Amino acid sequence: MRTKVGIIGAGPAGLMLSHLLHLQGIDSVIIERKSREQIESTIRAGVLEQSTMDLLNETGVGERMMKYGDPHKGIEFQFNKKRHRIDFEKLTGGKRIMVYPQHEVLKDLIAARLDAGGKILFNSRNVSPFDIDTKEPKIRFEHGGEEQELKCDFIAGCDGYHGPSRKVIPKELLKESEFVHPFGWLGILTETPPANPELIYAYHERGFALISTRTPEVQRYYLQVDPNDDINNWSDERIWSEIHARVDLDDWEIEEGPIFQKNIVSMRSYICETMQYGRLFLAGDAAHIVPPTGAKGLNLAIGDIRVLAEGLKYFYETGSEQVLEQYSEVCVRRVWRAQRFASQMTNLLHHHEQKSNFENGVQLAELEYISSSESASKTIAENYADLKVEFPKVPSRVE
Amino acid sequence: MRTKVGIIGAGPAGLMLSHLLHLQGIDSVIIERKSREQIESTIRAGVLEQSTMDLLNETGVGERMMKYGDPHKGIEFQFNKKRHRIDFEKLTGGKRIMVYPQHEVLKDLIAARLDAGGKILFNSRNVSPFDIDTKEPKIRFEHGGEEQELKCDFIAGCDGYHGPSRKVIPKELLKESEFVHPFGWLGILTETPPANPELIYAYHERGFALISTRTPEVQRYYLQVDPNDDINNWSDERIWSEIHARVDLDDWEIEEGPIFQKNIVSMRSYICETMQYGRLFLAGDAAHIVPPTGAKGLNLAIGDIRVLAEGLKYFYETGSEQVLEQYSEVCVRRVWRAQRFASQMTNLLHHHEQKSNFENGVQLAELEYISSSESASKTIAENYADLKVEFPKVPSRVE
Repeated sequence: MRTKVGIIGAGPAGLMLSHLLHLQGIDSVIIERKSREQIESTIRAGVLEQSTMDLLNETGVGERMMKYGDPHKGIEFQFNKKRHRIDFEKLTGGKRIMVYPQHEVLKDLIAARLDAGGKILFNSRNVSPFDIDTKEPKIRFEHGGEEQELKCDFIAGCDGYHGPSRKVIPKELLKESEFVHPFGWLGILTETPPANPELIYAYHERGFALISTRTPEVQRYYLQVDPNDDINNWSDERIWSEIHARVDLDDWEIEEGPIFQKNIVSMRSYICETMQYGRLFLAGDAAHIVPPTGAKGLNLAIGDIRVLAEGLKYFYETGSEQVLEQYSEVCVRRVWRAQRFASQMTNLLHHHEQKSNFENGVQLAELEYISSSESASKTIAENYADLKVEFPKVPSRVE
Repeated sequence: MRTKVGIIGAGPAGLMLSHLLHLQGIDSVIIERKSREQIESTIRAGVLEQSTMDLLNETGVGERMMKYGDPHKGIEFQFNKKRHRIDFEKLTGGKRIMVYPQHEVLKDLIAARLDAGGKILFNSRNVSPFDIDTKEPKIRFEHGGEEQELKCDFIAGCDGYHGPSRKVIPKELLKESEFVHPFGWLGILTETPPANPELIYAYHERGFALISTRTPEVQRYYLQVDPNDDINNWSDERIWSEIHARVDLDDWEIEEGPIFQKNIVSMRSYICETMQYGRLFLAGDAAHIVPPTGAKGLNLAIGDIRVLAEGLKYFYETGSEQVLEQYSEVCVRRVWRAQRFASQMTNLLHHHEQKSNFENGVQLAELEYISSSESASKTIAENYADLKVEFPKVPSRVE
């Protein structure tokens, strides 16, 4: 089997890449470990920034998002029993975010690819890229009970943090940095109407709480907990009592509902500054993990893909790898900017047990400052609503 | 001896308070431990923010400052061998700072007070405020070889971190927070022309460096060093070689000159949130210490005094302590904002040995972000050039 671009992973990065390449008339095949059903039902992130939303619309896969998604024009910070709105629309000249679950984006992209005759090999096992430093890299995998080989011009490793792609890059060439935050997030899904028209990021000395939303019927709330805590220590009653303690105001109380899912996740930051090696390109979680506080995970993946698609398009038009060669450098700059933002949001909103009184005072002063200064609010708004994608320099084709 | 306001300490806070009270026709006496000569020759801070500069001009003590001071319209951040200007004037709608040494401000204020017949008791020993929770607080001290007592309506403790005022407040009522930064500043005074028209704040992986200025002939430079290092480990040659390594650019080199003073200071943040007790009011370093990175020390002291003068003026006009009662709350809010800014500048610009690769990457991304985003640059400019003074609510006098 042969294709131009072999894509490992049918997450947001892999599917969007295949979709963008298709629109440029460039052939690709996606190889995915999981089943379509698994992918379409796994609940992940849910916030699309302006440019991600625009891309879905511009490339014809935004219809359901516009119908079922929930556009938000801001978020609210809460501390000391008061709310402070960060007005994205006003502060960024009209930008907003779309609350639309990641698995719905995936459904839309899978449908679009399959409708257009795109090839997605679900349920592929033992996927392994090789010959990546040659002009004909290949992917070996098992599918339908048989071992198969896909020959390509390029491979896109869109296979997440645990996927095989990054692992074939020589260890000594990987430039990796990692940080494990001393916080866990206890997340619940509950059947209840939305508590607030916009997301509430609440700082409380008992810990951070996030009042998020999923659909008109189902809400997603998070509580900062010890990352080593056991979810069995958290009865529904204890969860609600803790949410009340952290987010209720004098004249406002969160409404309880049946909890039908709960778990604790740890918070980690990771960046691999080697995003390309030979003809293998890493994108999305395969190259970087951000804590969820900045709502950047999905958006970063889409940002990578836009840069990669630009390079591949240039290659198939001119035969030159000049644009592709800038991929890693251009993406890494944006990823660090997102890491900075996610770290800022994380440090700003969580309660740090190990911090001194003085440091806690500075954190509160930072919340006060961000809520009261227009320029400081704007730094939050411009990063949250639309962290700019920088594109590689494309040589003039007239030369 | 009796006066309306007894002031302990002839630093910027004490002298400015006495000056402002005089302009309102309110009598005061300053009691100071040191001699006039000592005060007028001790080199301290040197950056006045816009509103401090304005206050000196508006109250008739700005003449020498306008003649000999050096107005700056911005500062420069330097990292990765590049300079990035923070343009105060453009970002804040016309604000600037004045580089004018603190001891020159003191000379101007002392001259103004003495010319107007003001009383400053230099060389006072064993200064001790008492009866501060009564309507007639008193200061006991030795002056001219005799023990004396000054009876007052109010006492202003403008006597610095080590002064006697804070110590008479019952320990259990003090709400203190402290943070010792893991950095020292090696400061030099050198005879050489200014290296640059504006201050350069340089981040380097070898450590922070600050290229500051004093006069057209004398410059003040700082190097981040271990706070426990000994100045005897630093020959002039080693100092210059380290300055070169941290601040030289490909096409720019710092000019060396004779070093005539050098020392190492540690960096500390401190805030006492109890700024008033009975009829004693703490102002300036007596209540808070900021690391010098944000150039806020002197300006915070003047900010306190403006609020205190407002309260005293209201008292002598109406007999009501309603405005004075807000002093601590109003000042503390501003001090925390300054602490936040000074901490941000300190963390942004110093190299933290104990930080992980990831955290160092985030720090560089923060420098990149501040240098490239207008709103982020503006957060620096608005805090550096003019951290707003908030005034207490003054009840309408028409009621």
